[in-house]
Amino acid sequence: MVLLFPLYYLPLIETLRTMNKPQITIKDIAKALNVSPSTVSRALKDNPDISQDTRDAINKYAREHNYKPNALALNLRTSRSNTIGVIIPQLVHHFFSCVLSGIEMQAAKAGYNILVAQSNEEYEQEVKIVHSFLAARVCGVITSLAKDTSQYDHYQELLNNNIPIVFYDRICTGINTERVVVDDYAGSFAAVEYMIQTGCKRILFYSGPPHLEISKNRRNGYLDAMRKYKVPVDDNMIKLCDTREQAIAITPDLLEKKNRPDGFFAINDETASGILYACKLVGLKVPDEVSICGFTDGAIAQSTDPKLTTVEQHGQEVGESAFEILIGRLEGTSGEQKNNNRIVKTNLVVRGTTK
Amino acid sequence: MVLLFPLYYLPLIETLRTMNKPQITIKDIAKALNVSPSTVSRALKDNPDISQDTRDAINKYAREHNYKPNALALNLRTSRSNTIGVIIPQLVHHFFSCVLSGIEMQAAKAGYNILVAQSNEEYEQEVKIVHSFLAARVCGVITSLAKDTSQYDHYQELLNNNIPIVFYDRICTGINTERVVVDDYAGSFAAVEYMIQTGCKRILFYSGPPHLEISKNRRNGYLDAMRKYKVPVDDNMIKLCDTREQAIAITPDLLEKKNRPDGFFAINDETASGILYACKLVGLKVPDEVSICGFTDGAIAQSTDPKLTTVEQHGQEVGESAFEILIGRLEGTSGEQKNNNRIVKTNLVVRGTTK
Repeated sequence: MVLLFPLYYLPLIETLRTMNKPQITIKDIAKALNVSPSTVSRALKDNPDISQDTRDAINKYAREHNYKPNALALNLRTSRSNTIGVIIPQLVHHFFSCVLSGIEMQAAKAGYNILVAQSNEEYEQEVKIVHSFLAARVCGVITSLAKDTSQYDHYQELLNNNIPIVFYDRICTGINTERVVVDDYAGSFAAVEYMIQTGCKRILFYSGPPHLEISKNRRNGYLDAMRKYKVPVDDNMIKLCDTREQAIAITPDLLEKKNRPDGFFAINDETASGILYACKLVGLKVPDEVSICGFTDGAIAQSTDPKLTTVEQHGQEVGESAFEILIGRLEGTSGEQKNNNRIVKTNLVVRGTTK
Repeated sequence: MVLLFPLYYLPLIETLRTMNKPQITIKDIAKALNVSPSTVSRALKDNPDISQDTRDAINKYAREHNYKPNALALNLRTSRSNTIGVIIPQLVHHFFSCVLSGIEMQAAKAGYNILVAQSNEEYEQEVKIVHSFLAARVCGVITSLAKDTSQYDHYQELLNNNIPIVFYDRICTGINTERVVVDDYAGSFAAVEYMIQTGCKRILFYSGPPHLEISKNRRNGYLDAMRKYKVPVDDNMIKLCDTREQAIAITPDLLEKKNRPDGFFAINDETASGILYACKLVGLKVPDEVSICGFTDGAIAQSTDPKLTTVEQHGQEVGESAFEILIGRLEGTSGEQKNNNRIVKTNLVVRGTTK
């Protein structure tokens, strides 16, 4: 029997014993003072983002009404569960597998369990997952946005329950959380600069959905590299195309135009492998006539012929960093530092698809 | 607060209230009658694998000593957690990603959470994971053996705690559990038969560790196809080689021998892509001079040039089936059927690396 009741259930029992005592919550304070729960939460932590007047008013009200922080959510050292919720946009995806592996390995070392759920790139599924994580009493969440997520209330709900969140890769700029990103801008800049330096005059950028931060940052890296070398860019040079199938569908026509591209920078290796396939279809030599660079550096990059030049993304390190930040927050070792923004360096791996 | 205490905690509280009453357990019965706990467990379920005499003796002793099944472990409908533990040998691996995705999607539909842990192919890590799953009170486990696991006590411990297990792909024949396998034998037979029919006279088999069931079954498929067509096989034709790097290391020498192979059947696509690379290195044409067939059909198979002929493994379906079997057991819908052995069909996908 002992095995079935690990020690971390004891605080739960303790809390249940005292559940009958009515107690004022963050939401009650928010309602009474007509502010948002997250404002109350931050004011109680003396966060300087909240004006001094508001902080004073909230702390005064909390004292007068005998507010006690929710033991389950805040008294983390003693009463938290040791389970972390991890949201993955797609499990069958090299980069995300690497991230999950990094999270899992650090979690195993630190004695945490991880609940894993995939959004399948759908906002509604992401919302459901967040609610299941709340019900499962996770102590923290590591997540990356689904491609079609552009509302963030569900994440705010986690924060309102004092569950810390770390975003990785596809981060959320709409709410105030910690993040791990790969250095998309620098990776993109380095790739495009290399293609220009090796003779490309018309480089197309195949991008993901434009509202995602990773698309914006890689686009900016591309544009800045083109600008630096005074290579002209027009709107037709940036395409929404982020799968192998789409690349095979749209690339042959572009290659048969008069003003055909002589370089492609793709948002991932799948797309780059599709471009390579399309070049072979229309009889153009890679890299002599067309240069191609991807982004990821997974198994695909080693398997193509020639092997793919790509930006190495270090997914495992992204996962490890996300876990470290979360654990720092949960175990209080991150100190006063708020909104840790960790950047994992990328590096260009030059192989056979560029000169 | 309500959100933080879902209904499924109530039976836990109830059980804690009655914990002081001493109660006879399966282990007590086992000790008293000098049999193993799993024998007791099976006898109490009237499993015909246990002799009628033993079953009678155990059931008599249990009645006389007022044995009550452990409510937490057995009264599943009311008191189980809704969390399943999933063990993955390697997360960064196309087939296992697909299996995990299949499990996750079915679990999400059925309202179960999944704890995910990777053994990294190490027996000791696998044992640790099982203990962490016991501590986390999972209601069932889905697992695939690490390459170096050849003892099964940790899995027996789960069964002794009445936690059902479903093995997938790398199954365990040492203990009595349910399984989902891909049809390795038939997939292997079909691939080798196709290579023989298209003119190969000397086909090498690159295998995984020989103690794994998947290696044995694929080897048998290979051997039986060779036998059927009276193609001679000698010991030098079966190699332990299951990574791209190993394939690139050992293949060129073999291709430069007098009696060089004209066909390779590899245990996975990574290895097959390494063989393809090695053929190009030594200047042999694929498929004109050498045929290659892999096993998996992931992203790699689409990316090589020529594209890989391979055996499609349907990882997603394996994961879905494993979850269905487990849920059938947990929710009692699988009825009396014991040791469900589900086989997911494979199919040969002929592409450019075979004639």
